Amino acid sequence: MERLEQQLRFILEADKLKFIKRQTYLSDGVRKENDAEHSWHLALMAVLLSEYANDPVDQLMVLKMVLIHDLVEIDAGDTYAYDDEGNATKREREIKAADRIFKLLPKDQAQEYRNIWEEFEEAKTSEARFAHVLDRMQPLLLNDATDGIAWREHQVFQEQIKSRNAMVREGSVPLYNKMMELVDKHVEKENIRR
Amino acid sequence: MERLEQQLRFILEADKLKFIKRQTYLSDGVRKENDAEHSWHLALMAVLLSEYANDPVDQLMVLKMVLIHDLVEIDAGDTYAYDDEGNATKREREIKAADRIFKLLPKDQAQEYRNIWEEFEEAKTSEARFAHVLDRMQPLLLNDATDGIAWREHQVFQEQIKSRNAMVREGSVPLYNKMMELVDKHVEKENIRR
Repeated sequence: MERLEQQLRFILEADKLKFIKRQTYLSDGVRKENDAEHSWHLALMAVLLSEYANDPVDQLMVLKMVLIHDLVEIDAGDTYAYDDEGNATKREREIKAADRIFKLLPKDQAQEYRNIWEEFEEAKTSEARFAHVLDRMQPLLLNDATDGIAWREHQVFQEQIKSRNAMVREGSVPLYNKMMELVDKHVEKENIRR
Repeated sequence: MERLEQQLRFILEADKLKFIKRQTYLSDGVRKENDAEHSWHLALMAVLLSEYANDPVDQLMVLKMVLIHDLVEIDAGDTYAYDDEGNATKREREIKAADRIFKLLPKDQAQEYRNIWEEFEEAKTSEARFAHVLDRMQPLLLNDATDGIAWREHQVFQEQIKSRNAMVREGSVPLYNKMMELVDKHVEKENIRR
């Protein structure tokens, strides 16, 4: 059963996603989230909110995407949304990681999941665009729930959030509108800088 | 948009799954896993290992199941597999939790996900049987990776593991065989008691 052994090695390697810390605080405002928790939350949102996608989406594909979209961070680390320096080298670091990590799988699955990751990265299909909506909305919901601690900690400007999230409109107009409503609320509360 | 507000309240409530600690150690052997991390790991396994299900499974249904199967533990807490006292009252506590938690969703989704949870609990459909395979196999893989710390900590007997996991055979013979191979290995190593 060499095939099963390869799959189990990948599944064990994936366990490391639980050690990759993000900048978002959980809803208790005490501990920061890790990538595995984040990915689970996106998956849950994917099935519950797919009715808001601008174009019909294949839910199974969206799920596969959000489940694996951050695996590259096992090697490349989490790059904070507003870390310009980190973002300049992000793509290069993540490609190297994808090369190593997906290759642990049997050939057919290695190819399949590498392609799914690339599809997510390119953000051109309706599934990839919707997966990005979720990826942007989830931390915003947690920031809202924690009265914007992470925004205050990083002194984030309204303009940074709005330009970064402009793409969300391509994936879901109603969810984009909801996100902008929350941003405006926290600008008003001075958790986000004008 | 009252419908969206209900969905977002549920999604925020679900964040609490990240605070529910399990008895399994992560692969570094230091920290114990929480339910959200566990659910993500099952979802990843669901798409990668579905070829081993005894009967064909609807992958989307298996995914929905594993994503929500532990939400009831937000109220009911995690009951350790070999905690007889806890297991005697588990079903009652979990039904109460399901009543509260799923009802946060809009009516149609509340019904859909409550039904999916019940389907998982009953373990009669091929999807539910396969979801249980994953739910049993994942902690075993982590126990194997950590040289059985959790088994040693709880002084688990071979017979307890084998009788608890007999049902796995109904969902997947190859994965059941792999699990029993791992159990035998750790009986040999004296991490599991004879």
